[in-house]
Amino acid sequence: MEGHLTNGMGTIGVNGINGIHGVPGDNGTNGVNSINGVNGASGANGLSNSVDLAEYLFRRLHELGIRSVHGVPGDYNLTALDYLPKAGLSWVGSVNELNAGYAADGYARVKGAAALITTFGVGELSSINAIAGAYSEYIPIIHIVGAPSTASQFENVILHHTLGNGDYQVFQEMNKHVSCAVAVLDDPSKAASMVDDTLRKCILQSRPVYISLPSDMVQAKVDGDRLKYPIDLSVPPNDLRRETHVVDMIMGLLQAARRPALLVDILSMRHHVTDEINEFIIRHNIPVFVTPMGKGAVDETLPQFQGIYVGAASDPVIRESFEASDLVLSIGLLKSDINTGCFTAKSDQLASIELHVDKTTVGFCEFPGIGMKGVLPQLIKCMDSMELAARAQSHGIKRKRMDSIEDGQKLTHDWLWPKVTEFLKMNDIVVTEAGTSNFGIWETGFKKGTIGLSSVLWSSIGFALGACQGAALAAREMTDVSRRTILFIGDGSFQLTAQELSTIIRHKLTPTIFIICNNGFVIERYVHGMNEPYNDIQPWKYNDIAAVFGAQPDTCRTYQIYTCEELQDLFNDRDFCSGKRLQLVELYLPGDDAPTSMKLLAAAAAKRNSKK
Amino acid sequence: MEGHLTNGMGTIGVNGINGIHGVPGDNGTNGVNSINGVNGASGANGLSNSVDLAEYLFRRLHELGIRSVHGVPGDYNLTALDYLPKAGLSWVGSVNELNAGYAADGYARVKGAAALITTFGVGELSSINAIAGAYSEYIPIIHIVGAPSTASQFENVILHHTLGNGDYQVFQEMNKHVSCAVAVLDDPSKAASMVDDTLRKCILQSRPVYISLPSDMVQAKVDGDRLKYPIDLSVPPNDLRRETHVVDMIMGLLQAARRPALLVDILSMRHHVTDEINEFIIRHNIPVFVTPMGKGAVDETLPQFQGIYVGAASDPVIRESFEASDLVLSIGLLKSDINTGCFTAKSDQLASIELHVDKTTVGFCEFPGIGMKGVLPQLIKCMDSMELAARAQSHGIKRKRMDSIEDGQKLTHDWLWPKVTEFLKMNDIVVTEAGTSNFGIWETGFKKGTIGLSSVLWSSIGFALGACQGAALAAREMTDVSRRTILFIGDGSFQLTAQELSTIIRHKLTPTIFIICNNGFVIERYVHGMNEPYNDIQPWKYNDIAAVFGAQPDTCRTYQIYTCEELQDLFNDRDFCSGKRLQLVELYLPGDDAPTSMKLLAAAAAKRNSKK
Repeated sequence: MEGHLTNGMGTIGVNGINGIHGVPGDNGTNGVNSINGVNGASGANGLSNSVDLAEYLFRRLHELGIRSVHGVPGDYNLTALDYLPKAGLSWVGSVNELNAGYAADGYARVKGAAALITTFGVGELSSINAIAGAYSEYIPIIHIVGAPSTASQFENVILHHTLGNGDYQVFQEMNKHVSCAVAVLDDPSKAASMVDDTLRKCILQSRPVYISLPSDMVQAKVDGDRLKYPIDLSVPPNDLRRETHVVDMIMGLLQAARRPALLVDILSMRHHVTDEINEFIIRHNIPVFVTPMGKGAVDETLPQFQGIYVGAASDPVIRESFEASDLVLSIGLLKSDINTGCFTAKSDQLASIELHVDKTTVGFCEFPGIGMKGVLPQLIKCMDSMELAARAQSHGIKRKRMDSIEDGQKLTHDWLWPKVTEFLKMNDIVVTEAGTSNFGIWETGFKKGTIGLSSVLWSSIGFALGACQGAALAAREMTDVSRRTILFIGDGSFQLTAQELSTIIRHKLTPTIFIICNNGFVIERYVHGMNEPYNDIQPWKYNDIAAVFGAQPDTCRTYQIYTCEELQDLFNDRDFCSGKRLQLVELYLPGDDAPTSMKLLAAAAAKRNSKK
Repeated sequence: MEGHLTNGMGTIGVNGINGIHGVPGDNGTNGVNSINGVNGASGANGLSNSVDLAEYLFRRLHELGIRSVHGVPGDYNLTALDYLPKAGLSWVGSVNELNAGYAADGYARVKGAAALITTFGVGELSSINAIAGAYSEYIPIIHIVGAPSTASQFENVILHHTLGNGDYQVFQEMNKHVSCAVAVLDDPSKAASMVDDTLRKCILQSRPVYISLPSDMVQAKVDGDRLKYPIDLSVPPNDLRRETHVVDMIMGLLQAARRPALLVDILSMRHHVTDEINEFIIRHNIPVFVTPMGKGAVDETLPQFQGIYVGAASDPVIRESFEASDLVLSIGLLKSDINTGCFTAKSDQLASIELHVDKTTVGFCEFPGIGMKGVLPQLIKCMDSMELAARAQSHGIKRKRMDSIEDGQKLTHDWLWPKVTEFLKMNDIVVTEAGTSNFGIWETGFKKGTIGLSSVLWSSIGFALGACQGAALAAREMTDVSRRTILFIGDGSFQLTAQELSTIIRHKLTPTIFIICNNGFVIERYVHGMNEPYNDIQPWKYNDIAAVFGAQPDTCRTYQIYTCEELQDLFNDRDFCSGKRLQLVELYLPGDDAPTSMKLLAAAAAKRNSKK
């Protein structure tokens, strides 16, 4: 349910030499005149064309399509921040580091990569939960930490923002657990190649990397000539003979299957094969299901789209349809608890084909090294020349019909989420929070080009408001299509990161934010303690909060919605639907109401736990 | 500048068998009837008097004087939370985990220990910056993390709040770097003794500990009989012959010194020897200085009190006085950058005696194992029987005289901080933020019993508002004396953790909060980028924020202060000074103004950096 490395006109060639180099659709306001022609001082360290390390690093970020850098200033990163404008980058300046991390995550899900700058110790640890979430959910964030000078580190002096023990490696060590690469830029002769290598890992593995930039290294001279050549982001191709063998096996099984199904999951988005998948679906006319984390990967307006499959937490009609299949081809599967209906998803290994980024499995056969980025295009090509068996089964999702609403009918989750389908437009970005929204959204039909953002595996509450900021900022930078950013977040979750609304206001972003006001942590009430006070929260006046954070009446509107009719009227309001200003909509729902899918999942979890 | 393990009537005997057992002054509203008489189910696991592990753990927290537990609910800790009331503990329920961690820190600085409960992964990592700060600044926080069941961990299933790799040790590993002990309670037969051992380390080392409580272990039966005996918190005594030798050496040097000085630092507070220090000062009639982190350790109303010594960042009169001494006896020294005026503090090893918790140094002689908890009482005793040389030097601090103020004179830091001296009362808790406040407070004279809270080594901005919540809560629980809680925080820092004001309102706490409104990060402007936009912040309407978070007009007042006269009037207002309600005072100061001490420190830092 995530962003694509696309520009609305097609996927950027991630199999090419320069995956994300030069994102079209950028509005160019921060254009860099000579990204490949560095005018730095020459001669330093014997370099014919030297450039300061901070400039080198930031120009590489620009090359990856990044235009805004998230973070919080701190005394060990201040001199580096001076280099942002000259590399064509804008400083966001979030209200705190955790929020900045979440925002970087949201930005990366839309634009393909993001950068976060924090300060040593206090800053980097404040954001580490966001980085862990990005690691868990495969989001490429380049986390740059401004560190004390190499001389201070060498002397082991006790500086502020340290543990007082002279240990300057300790925070890197902590970050190693949640980063696919860690680079300490303490040697000018190696720094530039370390930057390139680290950024390459970030993009190809689609996970956070950690870069330590000591304050005295900001101005270290590195080889500017390297910038003439973009970082090589090409994916090594599969071994052709082995790939052909695998493709043949898969095609044979697909042709023989009486009722095959396609199941698309999160890693298809992370490794940018969604365009190939949509082409495959159309050519093969195969019924397609998505997992919760895969929502957004497939064009839901295709007749082949069946809905979300989540095992026992699925809509019964969808579940029956999926489980009647005799062959499941899955792409980018991640078998986590929520993503599999608490491990109730049907999974018959012998009748499964799994495409992963670094391997393929066909039944019980494993093919390590045969990745989907090579296999999928071959599968599409094969179908050009073969006669597909006519598929008997009917397509089309059975969307719930909206019953007519009674006067004064109160909002409920079961009414709300299918209704949101009507509100959505093409290319919208829809952000949902790890609470009722993450489950309710399963009942909402996405339009073509809809980008869904949610944290399902990491499920850190508070994430979605920060991510909304980053997503809205990324959307504004991508001028190829107009995208609204729409957030659904519970009141309990909203409180954790509320002040990131200030950053949204500061940068004049215009998301529409639906706050589900139901007096606390409803998802936790369903897990344990339905009426326990620890699941309650302090009541806030949400309609006044934007004004406190500096919003002006002409740039922000607030709404309080109690009934179905009120929401229907709002969805019929063209001005509201234009998404031209910041809008805060309080949706009042009962504290004991939840989407049916969430109740089903809770029941599946309880059943599993009772077996232990 | 921190809390004491005292009850206002004297230090609790931390050298005794049960250091903090049964804190007097507790208001008893959550009294436990039979803390030593457990009525748990008997017979389970062959135990004659079994008790559920969560109850055991929470009763031990109660024994340490903890009455309120900070944290955020999450699905892996919910069942444990049910046990809090029966152990006499209240749940605070902060707005997010970082704030909760800061609040626990503030609570511990006032009450001697604090507990924090978070959930696996997302919760614990969100708070880890606060835990690192507590580690850095020697604050005993018991961090309890609700974890997935032992069965799920054993099976390595991919649950939410994990990295998706089946690794359930990864977050413990990260926490090991910032905890003095890590306990995973996965074995009922060992859990109770692990709890006791871990809590003992927490208190004796005065540092955070990490306790992992898997959800299925909450109800594991452990030996309730152990609760009949409090945890042994006694400190091992020094070797008597060696201690006597050291004491004799020190006494000889003190008697021979022409102009000795005492320098008191943070670890004297962390290891609870401040009462002994104050007695020592009076008996010995020795001039005493404190470091920035030691502020609050010494009764500043004593005639022997000279002021803060911070090397080149000191008031010149104080600096001259300190540096003229021919012998410096220091207690609990921590030689960090800010604490030593960026390493400009005079330190002549041969003319120094250092008392530490685990060693003593006299000139170049080191005496490992000879700790100050034994040495200090001996030094006091010795002086009973000896004739002290009359000290020639004059005592008494030269407090800055307040000049008369002109009509409409704008607030400045140099005027503000000495003026605050008039506002303070006995036993106040004064919390300052890692910005201009942490420096300005050096110019404020504390009254007897004033507890100062600040994060100087860790210096994490946003800390102080969370700590203020915890401190105010702790103060309310300690009914022996009435304590106001007073916070000084900059606008930039306030924004990081602003929503913890909601928790303050929710629990009807009544701190007086001074927000220094100067448009951003002034301390950073002095380091680098005086006029750079990355040091700016979004302007907020601070006077409306409490109402948004649910404050009622009768329980909260707001003020906006621009001139010296307005502040003088406020300090003359008895109703304001009563501290009976939540008060938010905006103090408007120029964006380029800072306390003189901060400017001196910045200059010292710049001088040091230029040498490299």
